[in-house]
Amino acid sequence: MDKEFLARIERLQTAMTAKGVDVVFLYTPVNRLYFTGLPTSNGLLLVERQGAPIFYTDFRYIEAAQRTLRGMDIRKFKPAKEQLADYAAMGRAWKTIGYEGTLTVAQFLPLQETFAAAKMVGVSALISEIRGVKSPAEIDAIRRSAAANDALLAELLETFRPGMSELEMLRHFRMAEAARGLTESFDPIICAGANAVECHHRPDATILRPNAELLIDMGVIVDGYCSDMTRTLFYGTPTERFKEIFAIVLEANQAVREAIKPGLRCCDVDKIARDIIERHGYGEFFDHSLGHSVGLEIHEAPNLSKVCETILQPGMVVTDEPGIYIPGEVGVRIEDLLVITENGCEVLSHTPHELVLPC
Amino acid sequence: MDKEFLARIERLQTAMTAKGVDVVFLYTPVNRLYFTGLPTSNGLLLVERQGAPIFYTDFRYIEAAQRTLRGMDIRKFKPAKEQLADYAAMGRAWKTIGYEGTLTVAQFLPLQETFAAAKMVGVSALISEIRGVKSPAEIDAIRRSAAANDALLAELLETFRPGMSELEMLRHFRMAEAARGLTESFDPIICAGANAVECHHRPDATILRPNAELLIDMGVIVDGYCSDMTRTLFYGTPTERFKEIFAIVLEANQAVREAIKPGLRCCDVDKIARDIIERHGYGEFFDHSLGHSVGLEIHEAPNLSKVCETILQPGMVVTDEPGIYIPGEVGVRIEDLLVITENGCEVLSHTPHELVLPC
Repeated sequence: MDKEFLARIERLQTAMTAKGVDVVFLYTPVNRLYFTGLPTSNGLLLVERQGAPIFYTDFRYIEAAQRTLRGMDIRKFKPAKEQLADYAAMGRAWKTIGYEGTLTVAQFLPLQETFAAAKMVGVSALISEIRGVKSPAEIDAIRRSAAANDALLAELLETFRPGMSELEMLRHFRMAEAARGLTESFDPIICAGANAVECHHRPDATILRPNAELLIDMGVIVDGYCSDMTRTLFYGTPTERFKEIFAIVLEANQAVREAIKPGLRCCDVDKIARDIIERHGYGEFFDHSLGHSVGLEIHEAPNLSKVCETILQPGMVVTDEPGIYIPGEVGVRIEDLLVITENGCEVLSHTPHELVLPC
Repeated sequence: MDKEFLARIERLQTAMTAKGVDVVFLYTPVNRLYFTGLPTSNGLLLVERQGAPIFYTDFRYIEAAQRTLRGMDIRKFKPAKEQLADYAAMGRAWKTIGYEGTLTVAQFLPLQETFAAAKMVGVSALISEIRGVKSPAEIDAIRRSAAANDALLAELLETFRPGMSELEMLRHFRMAEAARGLTESFDPIICAGANAVECHHRPDATILRPNAELLIDMGVIVDGYCSDMTRTLFYGTPTERFKEIFAIVLEANQAVREAIKPGLRCCDVDKIARDIIERHGYGEFFDHSLGHSVGLEIHEAPNLSKVCETILQPGMVVTDEPGIYIPGEVGVRIEDLLVITENGCEVLSHTPHELVLPC
């Protein structure tokens, strides 16, 4: 096993010991990926407090697992009943069994039945905590992902122009992405004109008009790691209203990148942006959280939200994405990806914020 | 609500009445999509035996839901505790509560606690049965998806040639897909030469050599519906061994499309292909099921497997994909998409099976 993944498993085992968890059943693909580096759609990583984990999978992945997960005990899944009997046999001493909240009921209930005498404890929060603090290798991948996202948007801005529909722009997005060998971290959000007030608008036949705004929220995946960035452009001469709202959102975005640092609670950082927008009188039009963590998944914990009391640590990677959405009028969101450093943050998104383009 | 979706909900309500289920909590995105037509990443469709369902979602989708799901009771999710209190208040008479096996534990356990006096019953099988028989509109979408998949492969075959790596071919795949405005139903499997023996190979730097085989397993999504097809090509002069194995797999594939019809059990159809491959002495090298159903998801129930006793009905859409994989030597899979008709099947994949191309 690669040192990187060994270290991740050791962090898990340390946390398990601290919390008195004897064994953890990891079924969720992204968690298996995080702890092994091997992408598999079906498998189970069984981690006890000490020793090498057991990795179960099916015929599709068994050879790749044997080739890449040296040091782990690689086994092929047996039919369901035999498999459960194996767990029961090896788990006679397990008193506390950790499961993921993302486990399906169909996976959970047989386990609960098999270990009726043991205590089942949710470990999603514990795993989120581990995954929340990225290693230097992970930060490097996210940095490259953000750079690829910047480069992709720069190419698209050469192509997008008034007269195109959102769906045409989506097609250009996907062609450029494919040509660069990238995949997207989520369905890109492309909002022409008043559609920008819908936070999760799906591209449709709406045409981008001259003298109108265009909101693009996009991300790619590089070496498994996601990026995420939003820019709100204007084609033509921005209206006074757009300029006013844009300036407030940018002020909130900038205040966050200047203030964010280890030791602050996530909710404190959300408040920095929210206070600015409220002070300008638009609090009711900023109805989502300031940001979320990003890693192997596009939405990870902790969130920069009103209610998240997690304390920021170096190595966390979060979005800084305040927005103001005034129905029927104007919508602006500006989103950057930040990595928390020892004293503040490094900004990973390098596309300029103010993008006023000719019609 | 559109008649199509009203009919789907009525089928669910009829099945609920037959099985004595009072209410079904549908949290899984694809099931919500099936019963509403509205894609949402977060929501709950609450269906009682009679009357219009309740559709809960968050701020991102509430307007789209109000716009498109006329006749349903559209509500915004409240904070978790209040939400559970609402279920408890409206569910005083619920004795049997249906849940999906794909529900996460984090969704299931609070429900189980709220309705401690009720019986929780899994309804995944019941929903799979409903989704397994496609409506004419669904079959039409799958037919168009299969046609788009044929057209995409035809374009790719103009481009692919010996000297390219699997990753280069993947890049061409994604560019062509994007240019056609298509998305893929799964990561395409592209296997050059001996990689064809790995059923779920991920494209890598392997170069396609002259006088070698190329296995491509691919599918796209049209109007939400998946297609799936595999072809095993040969660039140059096929070896005798390749020709032998190819002929056996094709014989199995053809025997299935000729025999399949309503009334047969899925396992009977798997046996048709398996018997042929075994008769030729290669049974041990066909180590997966003959096929699976396809619809909104690329893998649906029922499966054409040794153990599936589901009886085929008109409107089911299944893959016919026998294969023989001889490690280090040769791998062949031929996969078509079939829809079960009143008397047999309609084949939806129209790409020729025998594709021998110049080097």
